[in-house]
Formats: sequence, structure tokens, C-alpha cells
Amino acid sequence: MATIAILGYGTVGSGVLEVLRRNAASIERRAGQPVTVKYICDIRDFSSHPDAALFVNNIDVILSDPEVTAVVETIGGLKPAYFYVKSALESGRHVVTSNKELVATHGAELLAIARRRGVCFLFEASVGGGTPIITPMHQCMAANVISEIAGIVNGTTNFMLTKMARENMDFGAALKLAQSLGYAETIDPSADVDGIDAQRKISILASLAFGRHFFPQNVPTRGIRDVSVKDIALAARQGAAVRLIAWARRGDDGSVALAVEPMLIPRENQLAGVEDVFNAVLVKGDMLGDVVFYGKGAGKLPTASAVVADVIDALKNGVKIHDSLFWQESAPIEGLYGDSTPADHYVRLENATEAVAKDLFGQQIEMLDTSDGEAVFTLRGVTSGRLAELCAKARAAGVRVGNTLKWMAE
Amino acid sequence: MATIAILGYGTVGSGVLEVLRRNAASIERRAGQPVTVKYICDIRDFSSHPDAALFVNNIDVILSDPEVTAVVETIGGLKPAYFYVKSALESGRHVVTSNKELVATHGAELLAIARRRGVCFLFEASVGGGTPIITPMHQCMAANVISEIAGIVNGTTNFMLTKMARENMDFGAALKLAQSLGYAETIDPSADVDGIDAQRKISILASLAFGRHFFPQNVPTRGIRDVSVKDIALAARQGAAVRLIAWARRGDDGSVALAVEPMLIPRENQLAGVEDVFNAVLVKGDMLGDVVFYGKGAGKLPTASAVVADVIDALKNGVKIHDSLFWQESAPIEGLYGDSTPADHYVRLENATEAVAKDLFGQQIEMLDTSDGEAVFTLRGVTSGRLAELCAKARAAGVRVGNTLKWMAE
Repeated sequence: MATIAILGYGTVGSGVLEVLRRNAASIERRAGQPVTVKYICDIRDFSSHPDAALFVNNIDVILSDPEVTAVVETIGGLKPAYFYVKSALESGRHVVTSNKELVATHGAELLAIARRRGVCFLFEASVGGGTPIITPMHQCMAANVISEIAGIVNGTTNFMLTKMARENMDFGAALKLAQSLGYAETIDPSADVDGIDAQRKISILASLAFGRHFFPQNVPTRGIRDVSVKDIALAARQGAAVRLIAWARRGDDGSVALAVEPMLIPRENQLAGVEDVFNAVLVKGDMLGDVVFYGKGAGKLPTASAVVADVIDALKNGVKIHDSLFWQESAPIEGLYGDSTPADHYVRLENATEAVAKDLFGQQIEMLDTSDGEAVFTLRGVTSGRLAELCAKARAAGVRVGNTLKWMAE
Repeated sequence: MATIAILGYGTVGSGVLEVLRRNAASIERRAGQPVTVKYICDIRDFSSHPDAALFVNNIDVILSDPEVTAVVETIGGLKPAYFYVKSALESGRHVVTSNKELVATHGAELLAIARRRGVCFLFEASVGGGTPIITPMHQCMAANVISEIAGIVNGTTNFMLTKMARENMDFGAALKLAQSLGYAETIDPSADVDGIDAQRKISILASLAFGRHFFPQNVPTRGIRDVSVKDIALAARQGAAVRLIAWARRGDDGSVALAVEPMLIPRENQLAGVEDVFNAVLVKGDMLGDVVFYGKGAGKLPTASAVVADVIDALKNGVKIHDSLFWQESAPIEGLYGDSTPADHYVRLENATEAVAKDLFGQQIEMLDTSDGEAVFTLRGVTSGRLAELCAKARAAGVRVGNTLKWMAE
């Protein structure tokens, strides 16, 4: 019998207990032994909970019990999760977490401690909720060198963009709806709408794919606040969808670029068809080409089932399998991982004629729309830096730049 | 250093050698040791090949060399692959194969031998080419009970259906194009177009998901020969795509249904957007909901890279991880795994008015088209058996049934 502890009895933590109980028989068969929760650590009062006997409010009880071989961390945030996870690993326990902030901030250090102590540190649920992404990336694609990742990794913003497209709902109304459904935080929704959640997730995926730690604060990040219903409708008329994309790319020279930004996705791309709260991550391997992993990005039971799969994995295999799930420690860089690759951009000028637009952005721009006194066009093959210069020039000439969005390459 | 042998130097076998050489550094890092090919077994003459020194034409040379710890089988078919693989497993070697016919026919027996001998029998490349499907299914979804699988698992027919839809090409022309591109066999293309390849793959996936061996010969199978350009165009007008779907479903009562059949897929379904030679498999877990794995279904390097990932896995972990990659032996059933679940069906009658159609199939049918003297409609909530009765009745009344296609449930 394997004895485990759960740290944090919120949505995911309570889901882990539920999954372990509901699928106990098949989990026992796969883990080769029954998996029992002996402790749940939570500072809140659960004295009237049916499982009250399991609750403790001090992690030392867990760490001093030699029966506990694996710890599940579902507290979220850095305090006290970081200290708890570090202590559990140092004490020789496997740790499984769903905490993306923790992995994005301290992943390399925690992986190094796990390796040194001969235990697992696993975090499939930190990206894509329950959708398998991290394991297929490091295990099934082990014979590939990964050059690019591009994903829809935040279900809340994808839900909002879907509503904006389907029901002509503006950003504010879509946000209110997402909040009322519990998808976005009521007090401060910025983790979702400003791309912070996606920034953490792409940091994790890039670290895994490229072998060294990439820090969230170095990822150029733009959320969906300035995406308008008009942008989405114009995109649809061009056969494209607007999606918040977290991407990372490694050039042949070893240079790495990362970003989180809303982009125009041509309909033929698998990512364009990802709607509602679903997530999808496209990974490009040098041997394999493109693969896409798609599934529901969040939710109590999906996320909990990914945590439990990692627990099974840790109990069965110990550290041996996970040598490939590792990346080197590194220091944050000054500034951001900029993108100097030329790309096509959608540009919407709020008060300009076609002639003015061509005068400012060049005769070769491809006009998409000139209704309502706006000039909307595609500008091909420019870097983000060059685009910023052109927009600054336009503003200096009294033109309001409504929005610019990068086209995803086909 | 790990020493391996490759059996069969065809497309996939030569790809395995190429992947191992091209990505030698990263493969060594992940496997924890260099991986070297010592033998290639092929009965053909490779005496002028640059690697002529590696070739042997007798498997005994390989099986009597204690340095060889893993064998890759990429011969295909049952003879001599079955005997070779069995001998290699019996002799205590890990075996990795891309051979779907072998796994679909003898998988349970070979898994049992591998378990008894404490070695791995791995076959990620047998379904979906290089796309990770089998490993995520048994490992990442370990905390789920799988109730349903539905996939596009044959790239050749998907390519043909895509061409028929996009370019109005008829079946014969699409087949010729697929043959000229090397996607379909020139002499007998029936493995692809009659669904035999898909039948083997769904047998493997169902065996893995439901825990006992399902034999290809028990899977009701229909290919794409009778899908016309007209059916595809009518489907498109209904916002649906025609796709060859291999599916398996387990009811709450434990009953299992499997089939390979062309179906109408509503555009909102992720499978509808899968085009060209791509594959995609949708798996439904009780905790996780739907996940989809998408990628290029075949090709030398993609498939070879999946084989190599399995080799790395076997060398690193031995048999421990693979207790969950197992199913029980069983006997073929008499007859087929029928589907008694009511579903919506598209029906095209070649010589009937709306009134005649309603008279034969019921007043509640939903007419889709009545041009060219045909009556095309959707009939909701009937079993395949009931539909067959109704079609027989129509034929008896002198009406030609152009085609019937099941709608995939939304």
C-alpha cells in the first residue's frame, strides 16, 4: 500500500481525493498497489468534514511520518507551497503538483533537489489541466529535437474570445460572464486576461523543450484586453480566428524567442478550431513534424486526474523514468526574449483612408476593410520592432492605431 | 552503451537508423547511454550499402549475441515477424514494433510473454505513426476509466476524402492520386480504402482501453469506396465533413461496440478539421472528458521517431512502467461487435420524391436535398439494424439507396 498526503484542500486537492476514491480499483491495478490518503494539510477548519480525521494544519506531521512516500501539492502560489514542496523533496518524498507559478518560478531548483534525493518532481497538471502535454512531450517525443511550441493554454480567455466571436459580446460582457461562471477571478481577473497564467505555462513548456529555465518575467506578454469585437469579426471575414497564443521557438542558431500574445490564426490551423474553455498545444519536432494535444484545460476532476496519473507514475517508477524530465538552472535575463523574426501583421487604423494608410505603412499593404472611416490591412514580413516604429509614425501624424495582431504563419 | 538490432530495413527500419544517428546526442542524454545499432536483419542483398557490415539475414546471429538488449521489428505482416518477435521476447530482449497487424493479432500473447520474461513489448508506432497516442492513453490517463475512442487513424483515406471535398475529385481519381504519391498500394489498395488498416488500429486501441484482446475480424468494417463526391458536398452544406472513423465504446453495463465506418462529423467536432494525411484520436475519460491527439499519421521519420522513443523507454525503465500497458488474452467471438445504440443517419435515395421518402422512412425525417430526383434526409435515433430494414423495404419498393452515413453525436 502506498500512503500519500495532500497539501491544500481546494478545488484540485478535493478532486484528487475524489478521483482516488472513485477509480480506486483501476488505480490500484495500474499503480501495482492501493493508494491511500493519510493526511490532508490545510490551515482552514475542516472539523465537521466527513474526512475530518485526515486533516492536519502542520506539515511537520506529514514529513515526520515515514509511511508517507508521496506528497501532492495543490495549494497554489509560492507561499507556503515552495517551502512545503522543497521540504518534502529534501525529506525524500515524491512530489506531484498542479501549481504552475511554483514550477515556472522554481522548477529547475526543485528538479535538481529531486534528482539529488532520488525522488520524482512531477507537474503534468500545471499545463493544460488534465490534458496530457508534458509527459508526451518529454517521453513520446524523446527522439525529437523540439523547435517550436504554440498553444492555447488559458481556457478562460479562450472562452471569452469564443463568446465575443459567436455572440458579438464585448470584452467587458464576456469577462463578466466568465466571472459569473467561476472561470475568472472576480476581484482581479488579470492572471487570465492579461496573460500572466499563459506566461507561466509557456515558461514551463519552453524550459522542458529547450533544456534550461526560462523565467515568466522575461516573456513579452500581452493579454486580450485590447481585442475588440470588430477585430474578431474582421478576422472571421479573412477566414481566421483570434486566439491568445503562448509560443516559444528555438532558431537553428540556438536563439530562443517566447511570447504570449493574441494572434490571428488561419482556419486551416488546428488551433483556430479550439473553442470555449478547451486548451490545445502544438509541438513541432524535427522528426515528427506537428503534433497537437487537445483537451479541457481546467476543471476539478480533469486536473485532479492528471495529478493522480503523476502519483501513479511516481509510485511505480520512482525517479528512473524522469531523467528526461529535467532542465538546467539559469538566471533571469535583463529585459525580454524579443522576437526579431519578420511576420505578417493585421493593422487597424481608426481614422485613416486607404491612401493615408498606404502613405504611412507602404504601398504594398493588403487592404482588408475601409468601412466606418477605418483602414484595416495586412502588412507582410515585418518585425515587431519595425511595426512599432511605423505605428509611432502613424500616431505622430494624428492617426489612432486601433489594434495590431500578428498572423500565425501557415 | 545499449546495443540494438533492427529487423526489416524498409521505410520505417531505415528511418530508425537515421533518427538514431541524426539525434544521437539528445537520444543519449535521454536514454542515459549511447544507443548503437549492431545488426540489421533483412533477407535482401545490401552488400553495396554503406552500412553493409551491419546486415545479417539470419535472426539467430542476433539472438545468440548477448550484447543485444533490444530488438526493433519493422518488417510488417505476420510472417516472419511473429516468430521473430516471439523468439526475441522469449530470449529476454525488449521488442519495439511498428507492426499493427502483429499487435492486433497477437498482442495479448506477446504482452504476456514480455511480462513473464521481464522485458518490454512496446508499439506506440503501430497507431498514429509518430503521433503519441498509446503512451498518453495508458500512462497520462491512468486515473481515468476510458469509455470511448473515436479516431481518424488512416492517413491515406483521409487524404482521399480531403481531395474529394476540396477538388470535387471522384473516388477513382483520388485513389489514383494517393497511389501515385505512394500513400496507397498500387496493386491492392484495400488495406486502406476498405478500412482494414483502421480495423487493426481500433482493435489495438480498444484492447488497451478495455483490458482484453479485441480481434480485427470481429470489428464491423466499411471503407470509403461508396462515399461519393455528392455525399461529401451535401455533408458540407450541412456543416459537416465525411471522415473514416474507427471507434470503440464501452457501455455502463460493460458491453463493448466497435466499428470502422465513414461518418458525418459536425464541424464543431475536432475530428472534422483533420485534413490530408493527418490522424487524430479522441479519447473520452470519465474524469478528464475528451482529449484529442493529433499529428501526421505516417511517414518514415515520424514513425521511426516513435519507435526510437519506445526504445529509449525500454532501455531506461525496463518492464516496470509497462505493467499498465497490458491486456488479457481472449478468443475471437463468433460474428461481429454490433452496435445497438440508436443514432442519427444521413440517407440518400437516388430515385425518390420527398413524399416517397417520407412514406418509406417516416414523416419525421428531415429533408436535406431533393435536387436531381434524389431524396436526401436525416433520420434521427434509429439503430443500424432498423435502418437496414428500412433500406431493404425501400429497395423492395424499387428505390435505389445511394448511401447511408451515420452522424457522429455532438
